[in-house]
Amino acid sequence: MKILSVNAGSSSLKFTLIELPEQEVIVSGTFEKIGISGSFYTIKYNGEKIKKESELKDHKDAVKILLDSLIELKIISSYDEISGVGHRLVHGGDKYTESVVIDDDVIKEVEKLIPLAPLHNPANLVGIRSFKEILPNTPMVAVFDTAFHQTMDKEEYLYAVPYSWYEKYGVRRYGFHGTSHRYISEKMFEYLGEHKKIINCHIGNGASICAIKDGKSIATSMGFTPIAGVIMGTRCGDIDLGLIPYVMSCENKTFEEVMTDLNKNSGMAALSGLSSDMRDVEDAYMQKDPRCITAINMYVKKIVDYIVMYNALLEGTDYITFTAGVGENSDIIRELVIKRLAFMNVKLNEEANTGLRGKFAQISAGDSSIKVMVVPTDEELMIAKDTYNLINN
Amino acid sequence: MKILSVNAGSSSLKFTLIELPEQEVIVSGTFEKIGISGSFYTIKYNGEKIKKESELKDHKDAVKILLDSLIELKIISSYDEISGVGHRLVHGGDKYTESVVIDDDVIKEVEKLIPLAPLHNPANLVGIRSFKEILPNTPMVAVFDTAFHQTMDKEEYLYAVPYSWYEKYGVRRYGFHGTSHRYISEKMFEYLGEHKKIINCHIGNGASICAIKDGKSIATSMGFTPIAGVIMGTRCGDIDLGLIPYVMSCENKTFEEVMTDLNKNSGMAALSGLSSDMRDVEDAYMQKDPRCITAINMYVKKIVDYIVMYNALLEGTDYITFTAGVGENSDIIRELVIKRLAFMNVKLNEEANTGLRGKFAQISAGDSSIKVMVVPTDEELMIAKDTYNLINN
Repeated sequence: MKILSVNAGSSSLKFTLIELPEQEVIVSGTFEKIGISGSFYTIKYNGEKIKKESELKDHKDAVKILLDSLIELKIISSYDEISGVGHRLVHGGDKYTESVVIDDDVIKEVEKLIPLAPLHNPANLVGIRSFKEILPNTPMVAVFDTAFHQTMDKEEYLYAVPYSWYEKYGVRRYGFHGTSHRYISEKMFEYLGEHKKIINCHIGNGASICAIKDGKSIATSMGFTPIAGVIMGTRCGDIDLGLIPYVMSCENKTFEEVMTDLNKNSGMAALSGLSSDMRDVEDAYMQKDPRCITAINMYVKKIVDYIVMYNALLEGTDYITFTAGVGENSDIIRELVIKRLAFMNVKLNEEANTGLRGKFAQISAGDSSIKVMVVPTDEELMIAKDTYNLINN
Repeated sequence: MKILSVNAGSSSLKFTLIELPEQEVIVSGTFEKIGISGSFYTIKYNGEKIKKESELKDHKDAVKILLDSLIELKIISSYDEISGVGHRLVHGGDKYTESVVIDDDVIKEVEKLIPLAPLHNPANLVGIRSFKEILPNTPMVAVFDTAFHQTMDKEEYLYAVPYSWYEKYGVRRYGFHGTSHRYISEKMFEYLGEHKKIINCHIGNGASICAIKDGKSIATSMGFTPIAGVIMGTRCGDIDLGLIPYVMSCENKTFEEVMTDLNKNSGMAALSGLSSDMRDVEDAYMQKDPRCITAINMYVKKIVDYIVMYNALLEGTDYITFTAGVGENSDIIRELVIKRLAFMNVKLNEEANTGLRGKFAQISAGDSSIKVMVVPTDEELMIAKDTYNLINN
């Protein structure tokens, strides 16, 4: 079965076509600047990358070009050969605890959840509607970034804020990156043949840590929104919200402007004064740039904070796993995190930690009190698998 | 020497008269509703508590009544017998790393710091000016709540927010309750005869945790303001600031109104739905009230979060100390905190933990991996001692 795994943003559409159950990626690509001038798309197929400029007045244009390109490349001979489309949805509120086949009710529910994810859910819905128009008879599945974390206890998801905010408006911790955390949890289960206690560090441009027990999320660092938790590329993570009114007054800015600063002009970009891209900050760290040294140390410390908190919550963990852009590719960050855990006898195998670049591997020393692994994530495959499983159910 | 230890609020004035170096409290009291109708004061002397209604149109009135009452009670025969006045000041910015004798420059500096503590510093200054007018020749000392934490590393006090906010406006972690954390640090040094690694839990209506190494604060849970950190009586502690715009829109509230909710209508009051007073919440917890069970578990978990974070930062700690209202008096909270640390072999001596009510005591079991103590705090004495030491310098 050929399953399309889709992630629609407000002006973009990413796709991966995967053959299942073989789990083989056939082709992938991205449509960008949809509805804006200068729109273009890239398609990766057979080791080649094709880039084309093309007017994309809306997401439907992108979907048509996508499918016609698949025919042109002789990957499919008709639209019918797409057996299912899995859509990434950012927010499923407390309504969706797992992936679901998309029907009119699901669309209505996701619309209702727009206030919780005002930027993402509408874009995700445009993606669903565009595919539905062009592939009206193809089954589609919604895979929610929040769903995996719905197993958290109330004590973990409530905030110490007016209770009516939770009861009336659903103010609580939701957590995100659930598809990735679940992928790692399942991958580790496959590898170990049993459930172990895992602290998964999904650290990329966005980043979240997740405590996993019996294959379920019991805690995660992102909160009501993805701004909370560890330090990210441009997001501040956990800070003292009491600084907001002071900054508004000093900078003569509105609350919205300060929120934009905290989302887009903070994190590693702000600390390093250089870049939100960890590779740039690491290069400067190696050159002993003082701000980048501070930035990296703070970044690492915040990850360690969550690891030790979740280790306490799990009453001791079996595995620490690293995934996503930084987690898979940055030897330095992993090394610095593990070194800060030396006091509890977590030990790195430095050789095993070097030059992995996305390879599944154990990187802890044999006598480490907690095993440490690098486990490449694959959200697209997770979405495609959920779609395949629900279609064949 | 008779030293007055003073804490001036916007409409209140608390004082303790202490004989030094004997460290004997002679008399203490509070003036309330200064400048408001219904003003009154209470004086505690010789085991008796006297309460009197009296018009107090400003803090100067209170100071006069205070000193005249001391004469009336035959504690002093003239104003000159007050050798010094120590004033609690909330915010010393990054300017003050320790207590100082108050001169015009100090007053000017504290005025400059008003934007960092817009509610507290002006009230503290009114207190200083009132005493200066009535006791123009008496030496006075400023004791800052922030000073003890000025030993924190940059990595500990910076936030991942635009760097210019730090450089231009001093946006950084300051931490508070420094006088109490320092008192505990010194008390433990007296007790042990050497510096040990300590995690001090100052938990009262306001609450903060502090990591202490070589007698110095290396990290603390309050931040740029006292709203950050663990859950407090009415303050939210650490939450996802991303919920603010959502709540503003749901409740049709201004940013300032939501900030007021987070400062005054959150914390244990919000979670329990009952009270900001831990005694009330504990009673309901014992009666198995479900919301109070959740509230207490969340409160305890958050303290444990900081303990394990600081344990990692200290690369293992020697002592956990409890102080302030809840820390000194709540057997249950201490017990629940320590039970959550059982996974790392921290063990309570349940008998030693029972019914202490403000007694200095070790409460960990003999084979506990970290020693746990109750250490009653005394900020008033600390302020008086600093005053005494600076006067005699």
